[in-house]
Amino acid sequence: MYGIFNYDIASPRMGVKVGEYILDLELVSLLGYFGDLNIDPAVFAQPVLNDFIALGKPVWQAVNQHIKALLSDEQAALADIHDQVFIHQSRATMHLPVRIGDYTDFYAGIHHAENVGRMFRPDAEPLLPNYRHLPVAYHGRASSIVVSETPVRRPQGQFMQNGQVTFGPSQALDFELELGLIIGKSNPLGKPIPIDEAEDYIFGITLFNDWSARDIQRWEYQPLGPFLGKNFSSSMSAWVVPLDELEPFRVEGPVQEPAPLPYLQSSKPGHFDIQLEAILQTKQGTEHRICQTNAKHLYWSFAQLIAHHTVGGCNLKIGDVLATGTISGTAPDSFGSLLELSWNGTQPLALADGSRRTFLEDGDSITLRGLAVDDEFGLRVELGDVSGKVLSALQRFS
Amino acid sequence: MYGIFNYDIASPRMGVKVGEYILDLELVSLLGYFGDLNIDPAVFAQPVLNDFIALGKPVWQAVNQHIKALLSDEQAALADIHDQVFIHQSRATMHLPVRIGDYTDFYAGIHHAENVGRMFRPDAEPLLPNYRHLPVAYHGRASSIVVSETPVRRPQGQFMQNGQVTFGPSQALDFELELGLIIGKSNPLGKPIPIDEAEDYIFGITLFNDWSARDIQRWEYQPLGPFLGKNFSSSMSAWVVPLDELEPFRVEGPVQEPAPLPYLQSSKPGHFDIQLEAILQTKQGTEHRICQTNAKHLYWSFAQLIAHHTVGGCNLKIGDVLATGTISGTAPDSFGSLLELSWNGTQPLALADGSRRTFLEDGDSITLRGLAVDDEFGLRVELGDVSGKVLSALQRFS
Repeated sequence: MYGIFNYDIASPRMGVKVGEYILDLELVSLLGYFGDLNIDPAVFAQPVLNDFIALGKPVWQAVNQHIKALLSDEQAALADIHDQVFIHQSRATMHLPVRIGDYTDFYAGIHHAENVGRMFRPDAEPLLPNYRHLPVAYHGRASSIVVSETPVRRPQGQFMQNGQVTFGPSQALDFELELGLIIGKSNPLGKPIPIDEAEDYIFGITLFNDWSARDIQRWEYQPLGPFLGKNFSSSMSAWVVPLDELEPFRVEGPVQEPAPLPYLQSSKPGHFDIQLEAILQTKQGTEHRICQTNAKHLYWSFAQLIAHHTVGGCNLKIGDVLATGTISGTAPDSFGSLLELSWNGTQPLALADGSRRTFLEDGDSITLRGLAVDDEFGLRVELGDVSGKVLSALQRFS
Repeated sequence: MYGIFNYDIASPRMGVKVGEYILDLELVSLLGYFGDLNIDPAVFAQPVLNDFIALGKPVWQAVNQHIKALLSDEQAALADIHDQVFIHQSRATMHLPVRIGDYTDFYAGIHHAENVGRMFRPDAEPLLPNYRHLPVAYHGRASSIVVSETPVRRPQGQFMQNGQVTFGPSQALDFELELGLIIGKSNPLGKPIPIDEAEDYIFGITLFNDWSARDIQRWEYQPLGPFLGKNFSSSMSAWVVPLDELEPFRVEGPVQEPAPLPYLQSSKPGHFDIQLEAILQTKQGTEHRICQTNAKHLYWSFAQLIAHHTVGGCNLKIGDVLATGTISGTAPDSFGSLLELSWNGTQPLALADGSRRTFLEDGDSITLRGLAVDDEFGLRVELGDVSGKVLSALQRFS
């Protein structure tokens, strides 16, 4: 998986994560180890992946194969320069891997949508009538997306408390376990992307935490959707896994009934079997796995998200992020947000250290992890973690 | 007012609109007419205004004053180079004036919000409970914002027709008359902008048409807000008027009752008396003024929009666009959208050429105009028009 890092006095550059180390691709390239790939080494010395991504899918694939060959035990091609090009992660500072143009957040996790419906519209059908016809989504805020390990400040804002409009630090700060798709190819404005080409527009995937202030969101979101309840920060992994790496884990998604309109019908399975989990670390340092779920629980596939996003002509650009929305399973310990895990605060989550959580406390950290494994073939693809610690709210405003 | 243009073989550069002409600021600067302002001429030779804006408000003001002096009759300073530096608009191609990071669309027009409430929730209070407490907004799509005169293709999409989920060209394509604020200064993530500093973060304003497909929007927007109903295109004027130019037109806004929370209370009036109108030109070329309204009808001031947007810590960046939402007055001919003018299609608008409109037809053009005038002091500030013509939908998808 690819990321942007710097170390010592070196400027930001592109790297590949290899266990505890990062392979410095600018150095590898400058030292001539990319042979006849004919890529300008400058492309590996950028502060974001965008220029590399813009070289196109055949180049991503060639570079990916070449790096795998360099890393394979048999060749030990990099043995002579090992100490030079492998940087221990402890020496590195990670950066946001892409310059993000626009960020879209979907609502593709059907069990999450059902849970939210059950909580907020208890007397109605959990899913709204449009849910199974189109991937519901809203535009999010790109400027406030931060790289993993950036602390997240608890937002202040307006919410209703005891029937009064109140201003103060959010009392219902939450995480959302999501995947983010990094767009790898642009489509011109006005030209929809057909679903069977849609995956060619994905460079790779990351873990994504769409922090949410549920009280702010609840008060503000009618009729135009979430705004300040979401835009104070979203956290993205520093590492992007090429979609190709996940090919062995492709699976059928859930049966879609009613059948979606033709522009959302794909000729191949579009889901991926990726185990996901959320770890809550308290201020005291104890760690608690509070959620275990899987990307295959999403209702809509990645390809469907892209086909829908562009069917009216909207243009995607390289580096854009499409997040899936919260991924929950059906079991109570598979819910991807505290809103669901504590059932809107009514059923506090008991942690093993004896403490309880409805929503996040100052000093809590959330880490999301992802892993695809196929024991039969000995395959294992880890996603890059995303973590973030909650800082207490500013006190300047009232 | 400032814009980006090119002509003949010249690359895009910054210009000032002077009647039918554009003053080429790169040339003026290279020829030494910016005297001791000490600005790198390269800043005027960029394809967007962002680098100029980044120089900061004191520089905007100095350049603005200097250009006014150069243009004043008394000095005729540019007489010797007049033919060189004044380019007739007919020779120029205009470009999107800023590189937009994020685009936010507010709902600050209270009469618009009331009209929408009356149409869609006829048995309830027209305004939702949050409306007078906070400026409702949603994040929009930045990638599909186009400069004035770019044609706009009618989107295809899903909507309900006779109780059936249908796919096809939108049957309810609309315009929205809005103002766009161009952000002139960035705030760090996590640092709210106090309301009395908020106007310092505005570089200037433009006319903005947030094209909307009402049928697509209506089917998709619950529960997360508008998405494909809005993101197929928004049109922005090629010209940005510095906020300072509007200072003589500052007025008190409507009484805000209940009083907003302290972070939304300003020490000075924050509204501007700007006459606005929308012209519909049919395919046959006849022009019809279908709306006359005024920016002073907005409920929330520009400063309130910025203070609210950032109160939870969201960071604004230079070049971001904050649009006001549709600006309607109270009179039926002051409504800033066809949704309101035709009362959701139930009262077709009769045009002077005998034709009628519920929503836009292929070949229709919409032009938005703005003008601030003070006859007593002989002041007159025109905003840059924004116009766009509707193209028929693609026929490839079904």
